[in-house]
Amino acid sequence: MPRRVTGAYEQARARVRPVDGDAARSAREHHDRLTKPRGSLGRLEDLGVQLAAIAGADPPPIPVPAAIAVFAGDHGVVAEGVTPWPQEVTAQMVANFVAGGAAINCLARNAGATVTVIDVGVAADLDAVVGASAGLLQHRRVRAGTANLAREAAMADAEVDAALDTGADVAAELVGAGAAALVTGEMGIGNTTAAAAVIAALTGRPAAAVTGRGTGIDDAQLAHKVEVVERALTRAGGADVLGRLGARRVLAEVGGLELAALAGFIVGGAAARVPVVIDGVIAGAALLAAAHDCPAVLPYVIAGHRSTEPGASVVLEHLGLEPVLDLGLRLGEGSGACLALGVLHAAARLLHEMATFDAAGVTEKER
Amino acid sequence: MPRRVTGAYEQARARVRPVDGDAARSAREHHDRLTKPRGSLGRLEDLGVQLAAIAGADPPPIPVPAAIAVFAGDHGVVAEGVTPWPQEVTAQMVANFVAGGAAINCLARNAGATVTVIDVGVAADLDAVVGASAGLLQHRRVRAGTANLAREAAMADAEVDAALDTGADVAAELVGAGAAALVTGEMGIGNTTAAAAVIAALTGRPAAAVTGRGTGIDDAQLAHKVEVVERALTRAGGADVLGRLGARRVLAEVGGLELAALAGFIVGGAAARVPVVIDGVIAGAALLAAAHDCPAVLPYVIAGHRSTEPGASVVLEHLGLEPVLDLGLRLGEGSGACLALGVLHAAARLLHEMATFDAAGVTEKER
Repeated sequence: MPRRVTGAYEQARARVRPVDGDAARSAREHHDRLTKPRGSLGRLEDLGVQLAAIAGADPPPIPVPAAIAVFAGDHGVVAEGVTPWPQEVTAQMVANFVAGGAAINCLARNAGATVTVIDVGVAADLDAVVGASAGLLQHRRVRAGTANLAREAAMADAEVDAALDTGADVAAELVGAGAAALVTGEMGIGNTTAAAAVIAALTGRPAAAVTGRGTGIDDAQLAHKVEVVERALTRAGGADVLGRLGARRVLAEVGGLELAALAGFIVGGAAARVPVVIDGVIAGAALLAAAHDCPAVLPYVIAGHRSTEPGASVVLEHLGLEPVLDLGLRLGEGSGACLALGVLHAAARLLHEMATFDAAGVTEKER
Repeated sequence: MPRRVTGAYEQARARVRPVDGDAARSAREHHDRLTKPRGSLGRLEDLGVQLAAIAGADPPPIPVPAAIAVFAGDHGVVAEGVTPWPQEVTAQMVANFVAGGAAINCLARNAGATVTVIDVGVAADLDAVVGASAGLLQHRRVRAGTANLAREAAMADAEVDAALDTGADVAAELVGAGAAALVTGEMGIGNTTAAAAVIAALTGRPAAAVTGRGTGIDDAQLAHKVEVVERALTRAGGADVLGRLGARRVLAEVGGLELAALAGFIVGGAAARVPVVIDGVIAGAALLAAAHDCPAVLPYVIAGHRSTEPGASVVLEHLGLEPVLDLGLRLGEGSGACLALGVLHAAARLLHEMATFDAAGVTEKER
């Protein structure tokens, strides 16, 4: 029986508070007393200040352990031939996550982070695939895959709400269990198509500017994918009209179950006052939805990396976010965000451990 | 009594072999069988392939622990007023490194790396500064700071050779003690001026294009610094003529003791077949010298980050290197290179731990 915590999303949304400006100022001044030229640690200083603002403390706690939540869902739009991967791969990859053999598992071990896999909308019978390891998987399926968003609404409003609640609840659970940072992860064959439609609706950019090659398609397939995204947006009343109806409507019309869950997860993380590290284009689309519905989440998020998907860069630009890494990744799963965790650990650690000019007896620059 | 291993550099240079193309091909094919779309891990795949080529094994060993060597030296050119920091800061920072309070110490702990500090040319009495911790410091001073390169050769040829030998020997020692990767670190008030002159001589770019603000100077100070670099190059016969005389001549005329030691260290690391992670503009200048004298080192090096110093980008472009990180750092010490270690660990780990499509029972993309 899928668990549902009704109202978890709305409760989280109401609990998101501004970050702590005093702690941020303290961290900035603190950095200026450390034994290095002012500002010479670049983004590491900015990230340290942001972590202090989020935690309300200088130095901020080193954000370990981080918890990666991999939300899995299927997409009816695969019927349009938008991807060369069969839908069964979603369930197979869930089994791979549970067995620990996927990229995100390796990257999580590398970063000392945990991986939690949540079925919010896989279309297949997971028990058959996951087998004996099923206990490692959270069964919170809202429905067995979305409808084909090119032809009808991807899901009902109540299903969006259920997915948002699930995401917010997972965030609260993970933080309750000791996570000091959250990482957005996902799996869903076809989900770059849904993400492109969500990004187009919430940024006003044309489908061609936000639709990418996902897991690998050629020019003709990309042109077809753009056309599918355009058709979905037209069906839903046009991108502009749809965008003005709000994030939940966008998610219902052209979103995905794991996308909605991620939006709830981001809001849940901000409500719990922990940094939420955003992965690529899917997480970016979810962040757009979350920030549209709850702009106060933005100071809590850190863009882990710049995916090669064009939609990911559109999101970063739209929200004014500068990614930590830019390594040509386009895998998803949370991989790029997870890889950025080491930089966040370093940013916090510098504020804990570096000596000040006074303490180290180092002469300051002449003025 | 400073230790000198005569001939260590030449022996290392003669031992640098091409990397292993078979291991590289094996790692590339291996990546294509792992449970992800081909190429979707971007630079992580390229780095894994490079690590395999260096180690001659697929999967390559995870390069832990890494050893950071911080070579310290002073610069007579500070007499020209090229930096607002007093020369005594070099020795004070050596004490800070030995005490564990500098940025590089924090970043090393974050990456599970060791820090070794080597005095190859500090001008001050270090015993007075470092005190009881002096045992943690390698005393290998070649001379007490360089001469003022704007007025005379920075050092004698024999001193360049001694510094090169020291760097090569430190690399061999660290690898012998178990280091699986080396990281270039340095400290030396005034060393961005020497680095700019070396880069100008070895790339043919004008002084104004390779000289930066170092630890923080204003426009007028920068113009003066450019003029000092130009004067030094003119004194040494002009950048073009100097560059054609070879890396050792360049180091003698306009280099620095820690710069020469770093060049030896890079060659020593390549001779020992370990990855050498390059930091910012100082390490970049040393790499230019090393690669000029021994081009075979290049497949062994990984550019850890893009420093904000313009000379660092000139080096990257000149050598065709793509940095791992770009985080606006301009501290030196090895900080940016050290921060990149987590990405290298991840790159190697993926080849060890990720499941293949066959093993995980995941269906491959339709062709």
